[in-house]
Amino acid sequence: MSDSAILAAKAELPKAIAASAKLVDSALDAVLPQPAGRQARVQEAMRYAIMAGGKRLRPFLVLHSARLFGVEDTRALRVGAAIEALHTYSLVHDDLPCMDDDDLRRGRPTTHIAFDEMTAVLAGDALLTISFEILADARTHPSADVRCALIARLAEASGHSGMIGGQIIDMLADASFGVEDVIDLQRRKTGQLFEFSCEAGPILGGASPEDRARLKAYAEDMGVVFQITDDLLDVTSTAEKTGKAVGKDADMGKQTLVTLLGLEGARAEAEKRARRAVAALGPHAARAPELSALPFFLLDRDA
Amino acid sequence: MSDSAILAAKAELPKAIAASAKLVDSALDAVLPQPAGRQARVQEAMRYAIMAGGKRLRPFLVLHSARLFGVEDTRALRVGAAIEALHTYSLVHDDLPCMDDDDLRRGRPTTHIAFDEMTAVLAGDALLTISFEILADARTHPSADVRCALIARLAEASGHSGMIGGQIIDMLADASFGVEDVIDLQRRKTGQLFEFSCEAGPILGGASPEDRARLKAYAEDMGVVFQITDDLLDVTSTAEKTGKAVGKDADMGKQTLVTLLGLEGARAEAEKRARRAVAALGPHAARAPELSALPFFLLDRDA
Repeated sequence: MSDSAILAAKAELPKAIAASAKLVDSALDAVLPQPAGRQARVQEAMRYAIMAGGKRLRPFLVLHSARLFGVEDTRALRVGAAIEALHTYSLVHDDLPCMDDDDLRRGRPTTHIAFDEMTAVLAGDALLTISFEILADARTHPSADVRCALIARLAEASGHSGMIGGQIIDMLADASFGVEDVIDLQRRKTGQLFEFSCEAGPILGGASPEDRARLKAYAEDMGVVFQITDDLLDVTSTAEKTGKAVGKDADMGKQTLVTLLGLEGARAEAEKRARRAVAALGPHAARAPELSALPFFLLDRDA
Repeated sequence: MSDSAILAAKAELPKAIAASAKLVDSALDAVLPQPAGRQARVQEAMRYAIMAGGKRLRPFLVLHSARLFGVEDTRALRVGAAIEALHTYSLVHDDLPCMDDDDLRRGRPTTHIAFDEMTAVLAGDALLTISFEILADARTHPSADVRCALIARLAEASGHSGMIGGQIIDMLADASFGVEDVIDLQRRKTGQLFEFSCEAGPILGGASPEDRARLKAYAEDMGVVFQITDDLLDVTSTAEKTGKAVGKDADMGKQTLVTLLGLEGARAEAEKRARRAVAALGPHAARAPELSALPFFLLDRDA
């Protein structure tokens, strides 16, 4: 894909992201329970945590990776709702006092502040549980083999060696971490869910192993771009813009690619990864301008 | 099934439970990760929490409900491992300071005491996640439709309207709760997982809806027997015997069927339910002496 084509697609991306987020919010509203009965409090907390707006980046990746392989939006959006529920559970638990102890997320009180700690633990558990419930439902895909493939991949990506493994490594990390250590940690902690999101399209569409590998490789580099730009924001932005506390990594003596490579070095690495992500898409790069533009869009982000 | 046949089966039950628990412990050892790499701590905590011995009652129900319908033990034991992982996650999270704040479980320090609170939250999350990973794996059953049916049923049983719903209701419960309220709460909090365990057999065996309904009805009454005898123990036993704190319900002003019906009334209700559970099995009662004897075995339990 040419630089000028990517530039043009990047200009259109905010609209595409907003359109996708609107579809995802509708899908989430449809699959989440309406608070009812004595258990209403936990259902309200599930909705509070997930209905916080945002770019819905993971469902965006599912939607566009699915369209590449001719998958109906309704199916992709259910998978998008599942990954967003799973991502949200991880935020709710990460914000708890025994973990990051954050009071603010997207400019609003975190779930354990708006409700209480017990309700936040349970709402997180329920969001994790419902993500598998959504995937197991025949409305997600008529083939149970496809549904089981999605469930197995999501469990692997988010489990003890994936996202949860990354979270515990992050909690125990210290100043001795080098570049490879940080990349491994971040690939587990945030990258694995991006990889699931991009592989969901080829899985739903019954694509070839080669195509699935292309989308996975794209996601791996895109995830590094996301993480570096997130770490850059942590250093350069304000709480007002990001809606959460900033400067926490440095305060806690944690290494990131920014502390290890410097601002310039980290930015150069992100740019290299952005180009490599698009290259990994191969023949699909031009057919999916939204995916091709995304890493470059992230390089410019200020929130 | 005659009273004398049940009496005979009850005498054999401790051996049957011990034999099943041994098989389940092997299955758990096989499906749980070996601690490795920087994330070892969360994997160690998963094993610490689940490898605490015990009767493995839920996997016992899966195993014997599965044998009724000609299902191979290897498959039933994988489902048993999944339900035990899920049950264990719920205990780890329930024991947290923000919930029941228990330091002791089965005579050992609870997971957040033996490790720390953060690790306990993450180990619980990982046990919940792995339970769905086990079910999605083709080794559990060759039919993906069967695997998705198990996943959907487990998610429903353990989710916002099932076990988690019961947990939040329990946390918010007060002295105004009547008999029907308590039965509803306990059916969600503990009964739903028993129902899943007993329905897993007919699901794995492709049994008729009638047979599935029989096992479900059995589980519902068996669950009430379990809960009443648990509540009786909370009043009459010692921490030494049960391996956990006792007398907590009364201390916290919570209603149970024992506080509402009295010791004699609660015991009479449990006996009525035990008989009804066996009757619900219909033609299968005599073919599954382990299931038929279990409710009566629970009536005698002292731990």
